[in-house]
Amino acid sequence: MKKFIDTPETLLETSLQGYAHAHADILTLHTQPLFISRNTKKPGKVALISGGGSGHEPLHSGFVGYGMLDAACPGQVFTSPTPDQMLSAAQAVDNGAGVLFIVKNYAGDVMNFEMAAEMLEIANASVLVNDDIALPKTHSIGRRGVAGTLIVEKIVGAAAEAGLDLAACQALGERVNQATASIGVALSSCTVPALGHPTFNLAEDEMELGVGIHGEHGRETIKLQSASQISQLLAHSLEQELQPQPGQQVLLHVNGFGATPLIELHLLYQLAWQYWQQRGVKVVRSLVGNYTTSLDMAGASITLTLLDEELLKYWDAPVNTAALRWGC
Amino acid sequence: MKKFIDTPETLLETSLQGYAHAHADILTLHTQPLFISRNTKKPGKVALISGGGSGHEPLHSGFVGYGMLDAACPGQVFTSPTPDQMLSAAQAVDNGAGVLFIVKNYAGDVMNFEMAAEMLEIANASVLVNDDIALPKTHSIGRRGVAGTLIVEKIVGAAAEAGLDLAACQALGERVNQATASIGVALSSCTVPALGHPTFNLAEDEMELGVGIHGEHGRETIKLQSASQISQLLAHSLEQELQPQPGQQVLLHVNGFGATPLIELHLLYQLAWQYWQQRGVKVVRSLVGNYTTSLDMAGASITLTLLDEELLKYWDAPVNTAALRWGC
Repeated sequence: MKKFIDTPETLLETSLQGYAHAHADILTLHTQPLFISRNTKKPGKVALISGGGSGHEPLHSGFVGYGMLDAACPGQVFTSPTPDQMLSAAQAVDNGAGVLFIVKNYAGDVMNFEMAAEMLEIANASVLVNDDIALPKTHSIGRRGVAGTLIVEKIVGAAAEAGLDLAACQALGERVNQATASIGVALSSCTVPALGHPTFNLAEDEMELGVGIHGEHGRETIKLQSASQISQLLAHSLEQELQPQPGQQVLLHVNGFGATPLIELHLLYQLAWQYWQQRGVKVVRSLVGNYTTSLDMAGASITLTLLDEELLKYWDAPVNTAALRWGC
Repeated sequence: MKKFIDTPETLLETSLQGYAHAHADILTLHTQPLFISRNTKKPGKVALISGGGSGHEPLHSGFVGYGMLDAACPGQVFTSPTPDQMLSAAQAVDNGAGVLFIVKNYAGDVMNFEMAAEMLEIANASVLVNDDIALPKTHSIGRRGVAGTLIVEKIVGAAAEAGLDLAACQALGERVNQATASIGVALSSCTVPALGHPTFNLAEDEMELGVGIHGEHGRETIKLQSASQISQLLAHSLEQELQPQPGQQVLLHVNGFGATPLIELHLLYQLAWQYWQQRGVKVVRSLVGNYTTSLDMAGASITLTLLDEELLKYWDAPVNTAALRWGC
């Protein structure tokens, strides 16, 4: 295993200490239990809390700050945080208007966020994100939450900042989730530090289609294709799912899984952009970069969100976090 | 070669088209010759132009915008841009106050920027960046320009925005370069698309110390060490070079080479932060992420800049580019 690491046991907390030092103007690290909270509170604002296993950075810790999350609860690598983390975070960041949990659809996350919600003596609600269309809608445990999560967090974060109440924030989050679909492809697996070797192997001429963000196998292993073929394949799946009509405004998010350089991500973005351009679908907002990662996995996902004026307004609203920042 | 790519010949321009579409609010792509220019001109402001081989994204294209570069000239992967690119860029972005070229110290870049400077009928000056301390100061072709380049671009960009004239911008750039040192380590080589295989090989228990950003071998191949040992090694080299005294304010920049995830970069940052903390050196500003990359190389560099009030003021000044954005 070639990583910058001392031991798998100390990686997360030391890394979070570094993260907190580098962004001390925006956020604070709490260690018992582990969570990150935004420095500035705003009385009367719905508090947004997300979390999940680590190894997906900048998701979620990178999105704590004005206009997005009030707190993030990081679990160990690819492991759900425990309910005490969400409970303590909620008590710390509650502004008197209730707490909205934004949860990616994985069994462990769902269970632990539900336990926290039941124990919490503050009004709360949840949004479940399940944007990954690699699995059918009818899959027994449902679809996974992947790169669309940050779009839910950004848009609902802006709405909470604008004063929407808990029920309205929850409804908006569910609406963004419905309007969002993602699908990814991997060129390599990732290496979980505690495991020490890649979680699956691909031959030099293979890639993994419909891959998740936890080093698990995807929907199928297929022959390596050109960037044009890959972008067509992914965009076509998104088109079938969301069925954007000509004239529809969309947000196009090309996300790297951690080890894919920007020059390749911008190439994929351009090819996907052309796909929508040819169909009269209007790419009016874009996000390209490594945002929802899977440690050192090489690969990328494409996410599409169908926008309307309300979603566009909240996407454009000011945000001041480590990983997304504009208008502030 | 596992990359998102159609052909090595089309990678750069298609990727740049994607980049320009994704950031059309900030910049414009010109194709004959190839350069990227900032959308908003400011009469009377010194124009800053940088450039170099591609494969280091977001450097330099990601730093075009308010408060930083007026134009960037991308060459093919790891290949200098040609003088006509810098000439056309200079003519396009000149605001009547002259042009400052910011050039990384590589023979091809230096030669081509010099040729452009000689042909250009607009007042111009250059800053040569050579922050990489892997090579001795006395090396025949001098030290290379690496991750410190963006610090020169940010600080001089803010100074130009504030109205400093050409000579003052040049002097400031040279001062930042003198106050800045970098050193890097690689865990893997990178694969240049036109070559199709890694440019050097490392065993599973080896790393490359003092590595550059063009897939060349570093100063030496050494045994893989822990993150604590690596950060000590790099920080000690920076300390010997810059000799920061207790109480000195510094900017600490941990840069990933493209394939290293944030969780590892923040770990390295924390370990370096502790190193300076123990010596009474004050890390007052930080930057952690993949900024000056070498395609898909796994590795990281640490850059230290000794700050004074003027440098701090310009570092903090508003910037609005794709890769660095604050205060706007």
